[in-house]
Amino acid sequence: MSLLDSALLTDLYQLTMLHGYFTHGMRETAVFELFVRKLPANRNFLMAVGLEQALTFLEQLRFSEEDLEWVEKSGKFPRGFAAHLASLRFTGEVHAVPEGTIFLPNEPILRVTAPMPEAQLVESRLMNLVHFETLIASKAARGVLAASGKLLVDFGLRRAHGAEAGLLGARASYIAGYAGTATVSAAQRMGIPIFGTMAHSFVQAHDDESAAFQRFAEAYPRDTVLLLDTYDTEIAAHKAVALASRFKERGNGIHISGVRLDSGDLAALARNVRRILDEGGLGQTTIFASGNLDEYAMRELTAAGAPIDGFGVGSSLVTSSDAPVLDAVYKLQEYAGKPRRKRSTGKATWPGRKQVFRNLRDGRFDHDIVTVEGDAQTGSPLLVQVMRNGRRLHAPESLQTMRERAAAQLASLPERLKTLEAATTPYRVEISPALHKLAAQVDRMTGEIPALCQ
Amino acid sequence: MSLLDSALLTDLYQLTMLHGYFTHGMRETAVFELFVRKLPANRNFLMAVGLEQALTFLEQLRFSEEDLEWVEKSGKFPRGFAAHLASLRFTGEVHAVPEGTIFLPNEPILRVTAPMPEAQLVESRLMNLVHFETLIASKAARGVLAASGKLLVDFGLRRAHGAEAGLLGARASYIAGYAGTATVSAAQRMGIPIFGTMAHSFVQAHDDESAAFQRFAEAYPRDTVLLLDTYDTEIAAHKAVALASRFKERGNGIHISGVRLDSGDLAALARNVRRILDEGGLGQTTIFASGNLDEYAMRELTAAGAPIDGFGVGSSLVTSSDAPVLDAVYKLQEYAGKPRRKRSTGKATWPGRKQVFRNLRDGRFDHDIVTVEGDAQTGSPLLVQVMRNGRRLHAPESLQTMRERAAAQLASLPERLKTLEAATTPYRVEISPALHKLAAQVDRMTGEIPALCQ
Repeated sequence: MSLLDSALLTDLYQLTMLHGYFTHGMRETAVFELFVRKLPANRNFLMAVGLEQALTFLEQLRFSEEDLEWVEKSGKFPRGFAAHLASLRFTGEVHAVPEGTIFLPNEPILRVTAPMPEAQLVESRLMNLVHFETLIASKAARGVLAASGKLLVDFGLRRAHGAEAGLLGARASYIAGYAGTATVSAAQRMGIPIFGTMAHSFVQAHDDESAAFQRFAEAYPRDTVLLLDTYDTEIAAHKAVALASRFKERGNGIHISGVRLDSGDLAALARNVRRILDEGGLGQTTIFASGNLDEYAMRELTAAGAPIDGFGVGSSLVTSSDAPVLDAVYKLQEYAGKPRRKRSTGKATWPGRKQVFRNLRDGRFDHDIVTVEGDAQTGSPLLVQVMRNGRRLHAPESLQTMRERAAAQLASLPERLKTLEAATTPYRVEISPALHKLAAQVDRMTGEIPALCQ
Repeated sequence: MSLLDSALLTDLYQLTMLHGYFTHGMRETAVFELFVRKLPANRNFLMAVGLEQALTFLEQLRFSEEDLEWVEKSGKFPRGFAAHLASLRFTGEVHAVPEGTIFLPNEPILRVTAPMPEAQLVESRLMNLVHFETLIASKAARGVLAASGKLLVDFGLRRAHGAEAGLLGARASYIAGYAGTATVSAAQRMGIPIFGTMAHSFVQAHDDESAAFQRFAEAYPRDTVLLLDTYDTEIAAHKAVALASRFKERGNGIHISGVRLDSGDLAALARNVRRILDEGGLGQTTIFASGNLDEYAMRELTAAGAPIDGFGVGSSLVTSSDAPVLDAVYKLQEYAGKPRRKRSTGKATWPGRKQVFRNLRDGRFDHDIVTVEGDAQTGSPLLVQVMRNGRRLHAPESLQTMRERAAAQLASLPERLKTLEAATTPYRVEISPALHKLAAQVDRMTGEIPALCQ
């Protein structure tokens, strides 16, 4: 049983409501939109990722025999409910922004148009996928901006929140501009480039650090990266130089392609290690740094001119540790042809099917306009149709295509939004007059309620 | 292909090092311990969870044909490496603290004793499982302490970091004292109790809120919980009362078992809704609250005497949002019979195989002593052997057993550690003289290194 395609990976209330919809024949078309209500602190934009997994989930949605049997036996659902579920497939449409697109609060990044039970059921897992990948891509993009041009690698598997977070975190960060990941499964399953060095345990397992370095290099002659900080980083750098000399004397062709620093004052150590390597004739050997790094630390090291060629980032990346949750929601915007709106305190939504238009100035993103579908505005529309009748309209994009899009999007950001702190002047998102008008209309339709509340 | 049991769910450097170990015949016994280096801010203790998944992973560890083929073709590994992997199984021992046990920094909660390649390979996934479940159980325990006695339900799937995080988050929080989860798969796969109400979309899909309530109650007569805040919470409460009267008149036996508040001033709304329900003859109808809650909000609502019977907690629980990462590590402590120690700046470890003794005073936890295995100390030992020759020694514990243990552990905490803030006097963890002595011995063995650094 695959973890990924279970139709029971949903909240109980989705099934409870499905029973209500079935009972009352409520199978009219529902339109749900997925969007983020507000930016976390210190964010100027978000990056949409996760569509590919969302579409695969929708295409493969079905209740297995095992699921149906469980539903029958659980005692949680009325008799006959499982029979309704047995034939349920996703037959609807999806519109979405392409993966790697930068977006802002109140801008839908995915819209589901389908018979109510289908559109309702998929909420939990769609959110679970798109929220997480978008969260990590948005975090990774900050690192890419902060460490301008250096090689960034995801080291996060061990402290990611489960296996899927490790894999999809590798994917999301790769799309956002990371060079790759340490997670082998991510290479196997998705073709993401993998990077690896050595761990302290390899050094510790030898009585002598030099012997450990030599054995590692001999076992991995092509791409040897030695970890220097198990005992003392600078002494270890001298050992690396000595080892390279011995290899040179022997003419065995092995060279030390890189070293890794994982603790201590990374800027100072990198300078000293660079000097030791250069003086020892290892000018081509790169320096890679890791150890509780985040985008702030990378910015600081980069600004200080520390001679570091690349960074390994783990926990902070793959949990988006400063903001591990986005205020992402999936809300009903239309049912049976009528626009709908939630008006809960602090959580009101804009009704109807929407489109987002992006406007540029001097080649950079200038402002967006959110409006009702069909209302022409200046700029380019962000949402495109990607699924019809439950089938995707295009072959999946390559990761390379998404990476290029993400890079172009980041390059198109105004400079003031490329900082790690919230910009004084945030990106401008306008709500169109047509959308304001629609919201007022919907409020009038259910107008007795606000009147009564006074 | 199951996501959960892939041997390639590991970091590249584990495989790189394995190749080094194979090449040099380094198959001596290695001892790794998993522990947390320090508490996150505002934590007084942690709760160990995840052992069951860790043992299953170890028992099932093998490279599939598909994995081996990928290794051969990837071009990342020397020829012949896959043949070594083909026969690799986990044949070692595991000692661990039982799930639901409270622990502190520097106390090993899991120890792996196995031939070096096996013990090394499993690091990434063992950490991935045990770190995450421990993180969430530790977070959930705070909510349990803060909302004393109220019904707590995990609502986190949609913003959990992937599917596995949703499922294991449900498990970890259930063990820590939550009553259950909204995630259906967690009931199907692990037998965790599930809870559900209704969503705003169900109400919005109807032109009339009262009609929505009626239809929902008729479809779900046994356990109807109505969501009140789609438009106006108090008006909706009056509608619930009116509906209950209509049902009573009709004698259809349907009653409203609960209502849910999801936005606004929950304390004030709960009081007003309680009054409306009581005056309407719905004294038995419970009030359930949700909406961006965490342990602080629950403590405040509980302290204010808000008439709330239960809480649904989502994002903050399942991402441990205030501290989404623990400083958990898996470190080599002994190889080939010799104790080992890492001395990296700020990351030094205590060497050797260890045991933790817990000492009580007046029935409450008083202090722990960490010592080398075999060194008798006062108190009860926490680590017990759970696996030998790669097979578990006991049938898996029931979730109920773990829940009871967790509850007993929380009850045994000194009162000063039950707060949500860091206690002025933290829990005392002593490092025994025997362990200090061993560390000094290990340092002398590798003594030339610190000497050179001066």
